[in-house]
Amino acid sequence: MYPDVQSLKPERRYKITRVGVKNVVKPIFVKRGNKIITLVTTIDIFVDLPPSKKGSDMSRNIEVISEIVEESVSKPCTGIENLASRIVKKVKEKHEYATYAEVHLRADYFLERCTPLGRKTIERYGLIGRARMNEEGVKKMVGVEVVGMTACPCAMETVRAILRERYGDEILEKIPVPTHNQRNVATVMLEVPEGYDVEANDLIYIIEESMSSPTYEILKRRDEGEVVLKAHENPKFVEDVVREILHRILKKYSNLPDEVMVIVRSESEESIHKHNAFAERVTTLGELRR
Amino acid sequence: MYPDVQSLKPERRYKITRVGVKNVVKPIFVKRGNKIITLVTTIDIFVDLPPSKKGSDMSRNIEVISEIVEESVSKPCTGIENLASRIVKKVKEKHEYATYAEVHLRADYFLERCTPLGRKTIERYGLIGRARMNEEGVKKMVGVEVVGMTACPCAMETVRAILRERYGDEILEKIPVPTHNQRNVATVMLEVPEGYDVEANDLIYIIEESMSSPTYEILKRRDEGEVVLKAHENPKFVEDVVREILHRILKKYSNLPDEVMVIVRSESEESIHKHNAFAERVTTLGELRR
Amino acid sequence: MYPDVQSLKPERRYKITRVGVKNVVKPIFVKRGNKIITLVTTIDIFVDLPPSKKGSDMSRNIEVISEIVEESVSKPCTGIENLASRIVKKVKEKHEYATYAEVHLRADYFLERCTPLGRKTIERYGLIGRARMNEEGVKKMVGVEVVGMTACPCAMETVRAILRERYGDEILEKIPVPTHNQRNVATVMLEVPEGYDVEANDLIYIIEESMSSPTYEILKRRDEGEVVLKAHENPKFVEDVVREILHRILKKYSNLPDEVMVIVRSESEESIHKHNAFAERVTTLGELRR
Amino acid sequence: MYPDVQSLKPERRYKITRVGVKNVVKPIFVKRGNKIITLVTTIDIFVDLPPSKKGSDMSRNIEVISEIVEESVSKPCTGIENLASRIVKKVKEKHEYATYAEVHLRADYFLERCTPLGRKTIERYGLIGRARMNEEGVKKMVGVEVVGMTACPCAMETVRAILRERYGDEILEKIPVPTHNQRNVATVMLEVPEGYDVEANDLIYIIEESMSSPTYEILKRRDEGEVVLKAHENPKFVEDVVREILHRILKKYSNLPDEVMVIVRSESEESIHKHNAFAERVTTLGELRR
Repeated sequence: MYPDVQSLKPERRYKITRVGVKNVVKPIFVKRGNKIITLVTTIDIFVDLPPSKKGSDMSRNIEVISEIVEESVSKPCTGIENLASRIVKKVKEKHEYATYAEVHLRADYFLERCTPLGRKTIERYGLIGRARMNEEGVKKMVGVEVVGMTACPCAMETVRAILRERYGDEILEKIPVPTHNQRNVATVMLEVPEGYDVEANDLIYIIEESMSSPTYEILKRRDEGEVVLKAHENPKFVEDVVREILHRILKKYSNLPDEVMVIVRSESEESIHKHNAFAERVTTLGELRR
Repeated sequence: MYPDVQSLKPERRYKITRVGVKNVVKPIFVKRGNKIITLVTTIDIFVDLPPSKKGSDMSRNIEVISEIVEESVSKPCTGIENLASRIVKKVKEKHEYATYAEVHLRADYFLERCTPLGRKTIERYGLIGRARMNEEGVKKMVGVEVVGMTACPCAMETVRAILRERYGDEILEKIPVPTHNQRNVATVMLEVPEGYDVEANDLIYIIEESMSSPTYEILKRRDEGEVVLKAHENPKFVEDVVREILHRILKKYSNLPDEVMVIVRSESEESIHKHNAFAERVTTLGELRR
Repeated sequence: MYPDVQSLKPERRYKITRVGVKNVVKPIFVKRGNKIITLVTTIDIFVDLPPSKKGSDMSRNIEVISEIVEESVSKPCTGIENLASRIVKKVKEKHEYATYAEVHLRADYFLERCTPLGRKTIERYGLIGRARMNEEGVKKMVGVEVVGMTACPCAMETVRAILRERYGDEILEKIPVPTHNQRNVATVMLEVPEGYDVEANDLIYIIEESMSSPTYEILKRRDEGEVVLKAHENPKFVEDVVREILHRILKKYSNLPDEVMVIVRSESEESIHKHNAFAERVTTLGELRR
Repeated sequence: MYPDVQSLKPERRYKITRVGVKNVVKPIFVKRGNKIITLVTTIDIFVDLPPSKKGSDMSRNIEVISEIVEESVSKPCTGIENLASRIVKKVKEKHEYATYAEVHLRADYFLERCTPLGRKTIERYGLIGRARMNEEGVKKMVGVEVVGMTACPCAMETVRAILRERYGDEILEKIPVPTHNQRNVATVMLEVPEGYDVEANDLIYIIEESMSSPTYEILKRRDEGEVVLKAHENPKFVEDVVREILHRILKKYSNLPDEVMVIVRSESEESIHKHNAFAERVTTLGELRR
């Protein structure tokens, strides 16, 4: 009864690579261990569009999200990448003209942690799920974003040299001396092939172990000192953070096949500069193993 | 005299794909026509790093920027992509261990425009320059980001149908009826091969002509009415904006070779939804010409 | 054992108006109706500091948040302003040197809504809670942020005049004609005196009724047409949105005392301009009633 | 000829406190020393609106900006607060119904600086200008935002105590030991009464001297060490930064009258936490002098 403008032939006949919705925000229930938690999830959904169709039926993307949200109450997913995979399959099915579909999910995520002296704190992380689907099937990735701390190894050695010039004391060879340290945001994206499981909590743990030190929302005096010392006993460039993460991923996921994609990033909000330092590796497990 | 920590062998031997600085902001002088203008430019610079070197010498990236800024006073570039290309070459040279270098530039940019009734206004655009360099040479891209307006063709036809039910008047077939309209942000990134010239102003013009209507900072009454009517006489999906831009690029740049990369995006900040609508085409001119 | 640096006398003796933590993010359980929901809440906490004390004990602020988060599991609050009030009291108590404390809370919040044709959708809102405490007691405010739609009344009448010039048809006097419409973000902050209750859901409803139309995440064809028409039958300036909200607040909260503070804002992301239009009223209920 | 909808009586008769435009971005020429520089300026303009008028004539605000931009070519202002003052007077005049007008300006700003070892670098700052006008006249404020570095005095003493436990060496009493350090963003807003002059560059200098250390975009090895050491020889809480700035402002501006408003803020992006630490003083020079 109402005109179906989307199905008209467009005046200019070009294929569209990706068309859809961005920044849809919904609460989704997810199963973590034996608890159900709420993820306030930001969702992007795209499909491709053939040259012969004027518009994509975008409301179908939102319908899929609604169905998934409803399902998540009774049948919660166990991982954000599985959620992305569930969505991408439904989306591709609903857009019968599409040969490709893509879903991005992002959410804040919280874990209990212990400070060096054993005090419990709740820490915040980012959780990322992605899935792409084409004629050959679905590829999904799980990702985590972790804020931690890096202390600069280069400035530390220069400071050590300057202090030795001034004080000439041999103790200066042994103790951690000052250096600049700062917030570091590290990200891992790891492909999860069908039939395999990757636990986001493990990736968070790997990143935290790969920085100069994890950070904590609550630190009473001695705890604060221990965190600072730990960071200064493990000075790290952004490059070192990326390499350490790669090393630990190889060790932890020796069962994952060679073709698995992995992206690792580390960005330091440099305390001595107004700009950031950044390092990234984009590769496959196979390439790393060689 | 001071230890060169960057040159040490790292504990974990992995290559780094990209390492460098992000969000360096500097004023750079650029030549536009016969005027020198200041671009407040945000700069990212990356190189790769072999497995055998602990750290990249990041201060060299900033030194390159300083040299370019200084040069820009006496010898201003004529395009942001040429600036990116000049930087990428210097960067690669300074990091003798690098096999790859990459530069991203972004700046606000202003042009005088005329409203439908001929009033002059100054409008704001985004300017993007990118260059990558490997063993085979330099690739550079020029980009523009333009804010304009789209009016939805689908809602317009539904509204027309509803109004006809209510009023049954034949005039309703002929006149533009209400629809939702909104800010649209469209982006073009176009490769510029060595020996060719692409003028950012032309890309801005192409985008503005491809939306339902350009927007203007100053609109007195009648001008405002004309802009609204123009938008409603050219209702466009995000898909239509992308296609119209592709069509105009093919026409304008018939001289550019087939292998030239082009990326076109359109994102509407939907007035009837809380989320955005998005469309994108990533392709080469050759593929579009087929 | 470890030096208490915060308690030292500072070199420069000046009082600090506000000192504390910003952007602490935690999941907090809140009771809404007979359901427990999770609010991912961003928290700022400040106290004042006398001239004689070098530093505020900031970790106490995080301890208070931890206690409240834990309490929220067993004894969830019923409103975000009550949560803010609970926190501000604990904070002031823990900083025995403080004469003032202040707490800001912000969270995403979701409600089920019905489209014009009765389809259920889940919509996203912002929830704000604030509390300040000094010697005289606690003041708390509840706030909501709502994204909706405005259609411009001025452009509509100009377009009507232009269309009449062109078509001279009398129907044009009666029907809604095109105008620019866009996302509007409206905010209400309302003081809640001790012993009174204000329901955030009511404020959200008031704002949605005061715009040209609410917006919905999911709209199939006819629904989309109805939303566009509703907006064009209720064209509103940002000023009109603010006034309509004030009017409805006065009516709804006739029981609240005259000294109650109210702040109402409306910001339109203008579709025909690159800038935003903004209107605000800062006042008390008493002043409005006069 | 076209209906003047703004001048209609609104259905709901309430005064509007502030109505106008936000996020207008324009390049404006300003005189600094004997150079003309371009400020890419973000502009907000508001007036009040009486209960009897439906809408404010917002395009007049943009007309004022256009006139000022044009004037700035031939007759550049010498300070951003004078620019704000010039705009607020024109705006109030153009809105003959307004009893109040308000203008906010923000721009990136660049100064040449020297690193500890004398290398020249160009550093980025934020420049803020504000002006308000009512029946009693104009009040204007100049503001600067500066990114620098703070090192925590508390963690340093705890680390010193821990290192003494471990190493028992007396040198540890004398040398700077590690602590957490991070980016700090400090802001000063200072009222400038008619007939007085405040130089933004001086405020920037005051802030840089009040932090643990300024930061620099380019630092070769030894310079980097000196910056780190300087920061560790001047550990500062956010409270200390605010107090030191207040102290230096009092000294520098002993000529300014008592009623002059001053706002000082310091926010540390804590390297050991995921949240920020914040301190603020809002006061008058008179209150500080007491």
